[in-house]
Amino acid sequence: MRCVVLGAGGFIGNNLLRLLDGKVAVLRGLVRVGARAPRSVGAEMIIGDFADTEKMRDLVRGCDTVFHLIGATTPATGHQNMIDDLERNVSQTLRFLDICVEQKVERLVFASSGGTVYGIPERLPTPEDAAKNPITSYGISKLAIEMYLELYRYHFGLDYRVLRLSNPYGPHQTVRQEHGVVAAFLRSALSGESVEIWGDGTVARDFIYIEDVVDAMLRAALHTGSARTFNIGSGTSVSIRELVSEIETVTGRHIECVYRAARPVDIGRSALDVRLAARELQWSPRTSLSGGLEKTAAWVERTLTQAEPENRDRVGAVGASGTGE
Amino acid sequence: MRCVVLGAGGFIGNNLLRLLDGKVAVLRGLVRVGARAPRSVGAEMIIGDFADTEKMRDLVRGCDTVFHLIGATTPATGHQNMIDDLERNVSQTLRFLDICVEQKVERLVFASSGGTVYGIPERLPTPEDAAKNPITSYGISKLAIEMYLELYRYHFGLDYRVLRLSNPYGPHQTVRQEHGVVAAFLRSALSGESVEIWGDGTVARDFIYIEDVVDAMLRAALHTGSARTFNIGSGTSVSIRELVSEIETVTGRHIECVYRAARPVDIGRSALDVRLAARELQWSPRTSLSGGLEKTAAWVERTLTQAEPENRDRVGAVGASGTGE
Repeated sequence: MRCVVLGAGGFIGNNLLRLLDGKVAVLRGLVRVGARAPRSVGAEMIIGDFADTEKMRDLVRGCDTVFHLIGATTPATGHQNMIDDLERNVSQTLRFLDICVEQKVERLVFASSGGTVYGIPERLPTPEDAAKNPITSYGISKLAIEMYLELYRYHFGLDYRVLRLSNPYGPHQTVRQEHGVVAAFLRSALSGESVEIWGDGTVARDFIYIEDVVDAMLRAALHTGSARTFNIGSGTSVSIRELVSEIETVTGRHIECVYRAARPVDIGRSALDVRLAARELQWSPRTSLSGGLEKTAAWVERTLTQAEPENRDRVGAVGASGTGE
Repeated sequence: MRCVVLGAGGFIGNNLLRLLDGKVAVLRGLVRVGARAPRSVGAEMIIGDFADTEKMRDLVRGCDTVFHLIGATTPATGHQNMIDDLERNVSQTLRFLDICVEQKVERLVFASSGGTVYGIPERLPTPEDAAKNPITSYGISKLAIEMYLELYRYHFGLDYRVLRLSNPYGPHQTVRQEHGVVAAFLRSALSGESVEIWGDGTVARDFIYIEDVVDAMLRAALHTGSARTFNIGSGTSVSIRELVSEIETVTGRHIECVYRAARPVDIGRSALDVRLAARELQWSPRTSLSGGLEKTAAWVERTLTQAEPENRDRVGAVGASGTGE
C-alpha cells in the first residue's frame, strides 16, 4: 500500500503511523499547521492545511489509500457553531474527495463517530443499521461525509470504508478540546488533582483501546467484502464512575470527583454492536479496559516524570472533561 | 395559524398559498428576488433573499408556523456543484433555524424529497425507515436538513414535520430547471412538439397531484402525534412510457418521444409507502393520475391559449426533461 494519513499529528493518526511504519511501501502524514508531527516515525510528514488544494494534490499523488482522520471540531465545539462545523468538515472533505478521484486514489478509510451518529440509541449495543438521529452537529457532519463517500463510490468509483469509532483511549491522547476523558483522568489521578464530571457520572461510554482501533483501520484498508461501514468499539459500556474506579485500581491513587451540570450534547449511554467487524474484518477488541488503562497510565506517568515536551503538551493543557465524544 | 411560506413563488408554494388563503389568521410568502409572486392571492408577499438575516427576522416575526419549500438546486444541478448545494441549502437553512428559535416560531414544515433521500430503494414501496443511501448531493442535503431539524427540536424546542414528497405535478409547475416532467410533457403534447426522455423510458416515478401535496402540508402543520417524518406520494410507480401513454389518452394527442442517454443521477424506480401518513395525518392521495392529468392539461392549455405572462413563463422556457426529481 501507498498510504496517506490525514490528521497524522492527532491521537489516532499518531498511533496509526506507528502501526503502518515499515509495513507499507509509502507512508505520508498530513500534520496541520501548528500541530506537532509525531516523532520516531519513518513517515514522510507534510505540514499543511487540509483546505490547500495544491498541497493536497501533491500529498495524495501516487498513493492508493487514504486514512481520513481529520475532524476540525468536537461534539461540544461543533454544537456552538454548526455552520462552521459543516463547512470546515464536510465542505473541505468534498473538495478533498474530488482530488482523490482526480489522482486515482483507490480507497479512503474514514474515522466516523459511533458515539454521535446514532444519537440516543434505540437499542444497545447499537448495530450499524440502527436509526440515526444525531443530537450534535458533529454527528450530522460525520453522517453527511459517510453519505458523500457512498455517492462518490457510486458515481466515481472511489472505494471507501467507514469506521464508526466508539471512545478510543490510549497513549498520545490529548486532553485538550474536551476529547480525552481517559488520559485526562489518568493525568489527574497521577498528579493528585481532582477531576470534573459533567452530570452525575452515570453517563456511560464504550471505551476502546487505540491499538485495537488502528488495527481495525489497517484491516478496513485491506478488506474485500461488500460491507463498507463498521462499528469499532468494545461492545460494552462503562459509566464514568466505573471508569474512575477502574483508574483508581490501576493507579492505586484516590481520585476526587467534582460534579458539574450535565452537558446537553451528551447521550446517556452508548455501546456499539461490533459483530459485523468481527465477521467481515476478522477484528475484535483484544485489550481489556484494565489492560488498556495500565498501558495508558504507564505512558501518562512517563510524560509526567520525563516531561517530554511533546507529551507534556498532550496531557497538561486543560482540566479533565467528564466525557469524550 | 400565523403562517410563513418560504418559496412562495415556486410550484408548491404557489399552490400552498392558494390553499391557505382565507383559512389562516396571517399568511406571508417569501418570493426570491427575480421570481414572480403568485397572483390572485390574499397573502402578504415579501420579496427577498433567504440569506438576508434581517429580512428573515421580519418575515417570521409574530408567526407560529413556517413552511420551508426552498430548494436552491435540483438533483441534477446540485450534483454538478456539491459544495455549493450544501452551502446554499443546508447552511442557509441553519441560519434560518436560528432565527426561528429566536422569534419563537412553533413549527416548521419542511418539503423533503422522497425521490432522492432513499437512493436506490431497498424495497418498494419504500417506507420512512428504509435505508437511506442517496446518490445525489440533493438527497444528502435534504437528509442533512432533516437531521438538523431533529437536533433543533431536541435542543431548542422548535417542532417540525418533514414531508418526503415523491414527484408532485399539477398547475403552476415550471418546466425550467429540469423539474417538471408532467407539465413539460403536457405542454409538448398540446403544442405538437416531441419530448426528450433520458434513458429508455422504463424509469418509473411516483407521481402525486399537487392538491394532495398541499393538503398533506396543512395536515402536517396541525398534526399532534409523535411521528414527524412522512412520505407523501401516490404509493405506486408509473414509468415514463406509461406516463406518455396516459398523457396521450388525456389530451387525445400523439407524443413523439426522442430518447437520450440515461442520467447517472436517476434511480430506476421509486414508489413511497404512505401508510404512516394515512394513519397519522388521516391523509391519502385523492386524485387519480388520469384525473390529475386532466386538470393539469386544462391549466396548460389555458396558459398556451391565453398566453398569460405568468403562466407562459412557467411552461415555455426549456424543452421537456425525461424525469423530474
